[in-house]
Amino acid sequence: MKKFINDPNDVLPEMMEGYLRAYGDIIERIEDYPSVVLKDLDPGKVGLIVGGGSGHEPIFIEYLGKGMADGASQGNICAAPSPDNILAVTKAVDRGKGVVYIYGNYSGDCMNFDMAAELADLEGIKTATVRVTDDVASAPKDRISDRRGIAGDFFVMRIAGAACYAGYDLEDVKRVADKANANTRTMGVALTPGTIPGEKPAFTLGEDEMEIGMGLHGEPGIRRDKIQPADKIVDQMMKMILEDLPFKKGDDVCLLVDGFGATTRMEMMIIIRRVSQLLDKEGITLHDVKFGNFATFQEMAGSSITLMRLDDELKKLYDSPMWSILFGQKGFSTHK
Amino acid sequence: MKKFINDPNDVLPEMMEGYLRAYGDIIERIEDYPSVVLKDLDPGKVGLIVGGGSGHEPIFIEYLGKGMADGASQGNICAAPSPDNILAVTKAVDRGKGVVYIYGNYSGDCMNFDMAAELADLEGIKTATVRVTDDVASAPKDRISDRRGIAGDFFVMRIAGAACYAGYDLEDVKRVADKANANTRTMGVALTPGTIPGEKPAFTLGEDEMEIGMGLHGEPGIRRDKIQPADKIVDQMMKMILEDLPFKKGDDVCLLVDGFGATTRMEMMIIIRRVSQLLDKEGITLHDVKFGNFATFQEMAGSSITLMRLDDELKKLYDSPMWSILFGQKGFSTHK
Repeated sequence: MKKFINDPNDVLPEMMEGYLRAYGDIIERIEDYPSVVLKDLDPGKVGLIVGGGSGHEPIFIEYLGKGMADGASQGNICAAPSPDNILAVTKAVDRGKGVVYIYGNYSGDCMNFDMAAELADLEGIKTATVRVTDDVASAPKDRISDRRGIAGDFFVMRIAGAACYAGYDLEDVKRVADKANANTRTMGVALTPGTIPGEKPAFTLGEDEMEIGMGLHGEPGIRRDKIQPADKIVDQMMKMILEDLPFKKGDDVCLLVDGFGATTRMEMMIIIRRVSQLLDKEGITLHDVKFGNFATFQEMAGSSITLMRLDDELKKLYDSPMWSILFGQKGFSTHK
Repeated sequence: MKKFINDPNDVLPEMMEGYLRAYGDIIERIEDYPSVVLKDLDPGKVGLIVGGGSGHEPIFIEYLGKGMADGASQGNICAAPSPDNILAVTKAVDRGKGVVYIYGNYSGDCMNFDMAAELADLEGIKTATVRVTDDVASAPKDRISDRRGIAGDFFVMRIAGAACYAGYDLEDVKRVADKANANTRTMGVALTPGTIPGEKPAFTLGEDEMEIGMGLHGEPGIRRDKIQPADKIVDQMMKMILEDLPFKKGDDVCLLVDGFGATTRMEMMIIIRRVSQLLDKEGITLHDVKFGNFATFQEMAGSSITLMRLDDELKKLYDSPMWSILFGQKGFSTHK
C-alpha cells in the first residue's frame, strides 16, 4: 500500500508533530505519550478523557474541543494507552471535580483505563467510566456489555462533553453518557481493508465481496456476502439497528454516517437518503445528520450507520454550542 | 471498484437527495439541476456562486455557508454546469448587488459561466468572474492563465465569501478574490486513481509509482516517479510552490493539505509536519492550517499542498467569523 510516510516506525511521532503544528495554539502534548489535552480548560468543570489506540484518526485527538473532550489518551497504533499515559492525562485535565473516561469497549482499553482509575484514586482524583458498546454486530443483545464501541463513540462523547461544559457533576455526566450509550446503535459494512503503515492489509475481501458487521480493526463481522445495491445493504443494516434498541414510531434520532476512511461523500449521501426514507416510513424523526470520517481504519472503504435516540435531556445537551478540532474549529458554533 | 451505489445512472440525483435530507433546513435545490442555494440570504449583499462538475465532493455543494458561497452551480459528474443552470442559480442569489462567479479554470466551466454572465446581463444582473489558477503543475509561470484550479479554490472562495458578507461591492469582491488567487499556489501528487461509479478507474499507476502534478480528473502531471519517502516528496512539491510565487522570508501564509479522497489523517499530518519545518527554515509564518478532504476525485489517494500568502486585508477577511457545511456547521465560528 502506497502511503505518504517516511519510516513506518516514525508515523506516530511524526503524526503527533503534524497535529501540534496545526493546532498547537489550543492543544498541548502530554510528554512521552501520543496524548494531548486542551490548553485552556474551564475551571470548576468535570474533565472528559477519551481514548484508545491510534490509527483511527480523526478519533481520538480531533475530538478535543469545548463541549467535547478535554483530553485524548492515545496508545500506539491499534494499542490501548498505558495506565501511566492515562494517569498523566487525568492529572492534566482534573480541576478538582473528577474525570470521566469514555472509550470503546475493547479488553486492552478496559484493563488499562481501570488500572488508571485506581492510580488516580490513590492521587485523590475521582473518576467514572463509560464504555461505548454501540456495535450491534459484535455480540447478541443479551450480551450488550460484550459489544465493541465504534462510530457511536462520537454521540456518547459529545453528550458527555456537553454535560461537562454545562457544569454537571461527575455522577451526572456518567449518567447522561450511559444514557446516550444505551440509546445508540451502529451497524457497519466493510468493502476494502485498511493498512497500517509498514504492515499488510488488515484483512482480505474478494473483488465483489462485502462483510457486514466487520469491526474497525478488521474483527470478523456476522456475514460475508456478494456486494449488493446500496439500498439493499442499508435496508439490512437498518433492520438490525431498528430492531435492536428497538427504535419506535415517534422517536427523535440523530444519524451519523461514518466513512471509515476511503468512502466518498457521494456514497454517504446515497446511504443518508435511504436511511431517511426508512425512518420516514417508521415514523421516526431525524433530528440531526452528521457524515464524514469520524472513526476510521486507515484507507478502509465501507460505512457505518449510527442512530442515537434522544430524550429531552439528550436533545438539549446535543444542541448546545460546541466546537471541536473534528470540525476544523477553534470557536463556538451550533451543530444542530 | 466496489461502492455503495444503486444504479450508476442514479448516483447524482440520489446524492442530491442525501444532501437535502442532511441540510434541507438551510439549503434548497434549484429545480432541474444538481445545484443548491442557501435559503436564508442576507439582504443587500453581493452574491457568491461557486461551481463546476460534480463528483469532487465536498466541493462545491458543501462550500455553502455564511462567509462562504451562497450558491453552488453544479453540472453532471466531471461536467460543467450548463449556462441555464448557472443563470437559475444567479437569479436565486442576486439581491440587486450583483453576483460573483468563482470556479476552477477549466474550458467547459469558462465557456458556460461566460455564457451565463451574458444571459444574466440581459436580465439586468451584473456579474464578475474569478477563475482559480492555483495548480503550479498545470502550466508554466508565463502562462498562469492556462493553469487549472484545484484545492486552492477553498482559499479564494473563502476570501470572496468573507468579502461578500462584509458588504464589499461587486468590484471589490472581485478585486480581493483575484488577489487571493494571485497569492495562492498548489502542488499535488497522486498515488491511486479515483473511479466514477459505473466507469473504470480514471487512470492507472504502478504499485510503486506516484505522479507529481496529476490533476483532479486524472490530467497528466509533470513527472511519474517511484514513490519516495514523504519528506522527499514534500520537499519537491514545496520547492515548486515556494519558487513559483515566490514566497519569501517574512511572508504570512495559510496552508491547506487536501486528501483527494482516500488519504489518511496520519499522512496529512506527516505532510503538515514537513511543510512546517520547511516554512520555519525559510522564515515564513504559518497563520492557519486546514486539512482534510476539500476537493476530491472519488476514492483517489494522494495529496496536495496549497499555500496562500496573506496581506492585512486578506488576513482580516480570512479570520472573520464564518460557517460552512464543509465544517459540519450551521452557525458562526472563527476558523483561524
